[in-house]
Amino acid sequence: MNKYQDRIDRFEGSLDCYFESRSNAQSMINEAMLYSLKAGGKRIRPLLLLEMCEAFGGNFDDAIDFAAGIEMIHTYSLIHDDLPCMDDDDLRRGKPTNHVVFGYDMAVLAGDGLLNKAFEIMLENVLKSENRDTGLRAMREISKASGAEGMILGQVADIKYQSDEMDVKTLDFINKHKTGKLIKAAMVSGATLGGASQSQLEIVERVAEDMGLLFQVVDDLLDIIGSVEKLGKRTQMDIKNDKMTYPMLLGLDETQHRIRKLEHQIVTGIKSLDIKSEFLLETVRFLANRDY
Amino acid sequence: MNKYQDRIDRFEGSLDCYFESRSNAQSMINEAMLYSLKAGGKRIRPLLLLEMCEAFGGNFDDAIDFAAGIEMIHTYSLIHDDLPCMDDDDLRRGKPTNHVVFGYDMAVLAGDGLLNKAFEIMLENVLKSENRDTGLRAMREISKASGAEGMILGQVADIKYQSDEMDVKTLDFINKHKTGKLIKAAMVSGATLGGASQSQLEIVERVAEDMGLLFQVVDDLLDIIGSVEKLGKRTQMDIKNDKMTYPMLLGLDETQHRIRKLEHQIVTGIKSLDIKSEFLLETVRFLANRDY
Repeated sequence: MNKYQDRIDRFEGSLDCYFESRSNAQSMINEAMLYSLKAGGKRIRPLLLLEMCEAFGGNFDDAIDFAAGIEMIHTYSLIHDDLPCMDDDDLRRGKPTNHVVFGYDMAVLAGDGLLNKAFEIMLENVLKSENRDTGLRAMREISKASGAEGMILGQVADIKYQSDEMDVKTLDFINKHKTGKLIKAAMVSGATLGGASQSQLEIVERVAEDMGLLFQVVDDLLDIIGSVEKLGKRTQMDIKNDKMTYPMLLGLDETQHRIRKLEHQIVTGIKSLDIKSEFLLETVRFLANRDY
Repeated sequence: MNKYQDRIDRFEGSLDCYFESRSNAQSMINEAMLYSLKAGGKRIRPLLLLEMCEAFGGNFDDAIDFAAGIEMIHTYSLIHDDLPCMDDDDLRRGKPTNHVVFGYDMAVLAGDGLLNKAFEIMLENVLKSENRDTGLRAMREISKASGAEGMILGQVADIKYQSDEMDVKTLDFINKHKTGKLIKAAMVSGATLGGASQSQLEIVERVAEDMGLLFQVVDDLLDIIGSVEKLGKRTQMDIKNDKMTYPMLLGLDETQHRIRKLEHQIVTGIKSLDIKSEFLLETVRFLANRDY
């Protein structure tokens, strides 16, 4: 996947420019933020955002600030999620987690800083842009998805519901919010920035919702059948953490079946849009069949 | 101070409308966010923002979303500041702190949720507004002030510097960022929303910077000479926490002198602006002479 890696490289190369250090204290917080932001990962959200934008005729440079912003939001949520008071994880993407390296207090602040910075850089983009309306609508999409009606709500539901009271409906609610909302926002805001029409956006929304769910179902599966080496994190943590997942609720076969069904729906949806979809479809196939 | 209280009441009355609960999990996170947001406090930042806006001819309704946003940001910073891994405070504004009531994990999420919501509601305002440029500039002012170049940087510096290596310059750096930036942003964004000219904004910036510092110097003083009952929080915590403050560095007399000097500079600055300043000046006098 050469084009894939090329785009990830361009995206990652752009991240440093958002962090300027003018004092010792600023170097410290920047180091903590960049440590997690540059720790790799699949870069699914920025890639989907950039791809959707380009598929609708927009270009990379117009969308990069939003792609960086959404990855900052995703990264902050991981830093806070890994904290001792939350999931208490010490390994993420093959590296010690933020609080292990920088301390509990700095990890809280690094997370706060990344969330704030995401809005700062998207806002700068809008202020400089000739098409403010598009940027503002993309920002709204992202801000609603990451907030207490979106991703944060998913995290709360995840804490609130015990695994013994979990059914598919509840698990879907958690995942649609905790992971799904931000993946959906990546695609919808990308399409918005690329100039998608209202009727196209309606299709993108359905496709993007399926994509968010697909991502999580595959994630759940990999926690059971994946390898620590490839994933860069401990496996079978869901069982250890008494966390309910799709394979536990549905069994492995039914989970695989759901993945195929979601993949099919997404591909059909994308094909019904009149856009340059080749690379996007490749990404869907990768996401549905990944082993890391 | 009747007008003062009237405005606080109007401001506080507006807060509920930003929180809609459509599920059990959402009620939980909303409850945790509202608990701290509605815990009272002096409401300095929203008041200053609203007053500046009105002093330049703007009106309450145009600025209320930004006033609520800045108070949400201030509140989130208090919730995270009080966490066991930070200052480990169990009392704030006379009530148990957020993590004492809702748990450590929920307090982290409630803070995250409030920061995110601040941007959501300011963004909604801009999207609906006829004068998007003004709203965007106000948002930029606030977002830069709250981020890793502003308030968060101040918190990092506060953690990084030990009290034995502290001098007035370093303490000023910490306070100008930790408390000062957001108070400054309240005034500058309020003036921006009210339609201040570029030359007026330059004066407002200087005045606002002094105001931020004034607020902190008074706070430091009250930690020593204030009463628990009036302040609604423990006093002499700075000494217990080995936290350096102005009275410790300068002595009580010099600290009082600095307060008078800042008050004088602020009043002179405000009077040089051609605005309705009566109520604003009253607020300055209150801030400089408050005992809670």
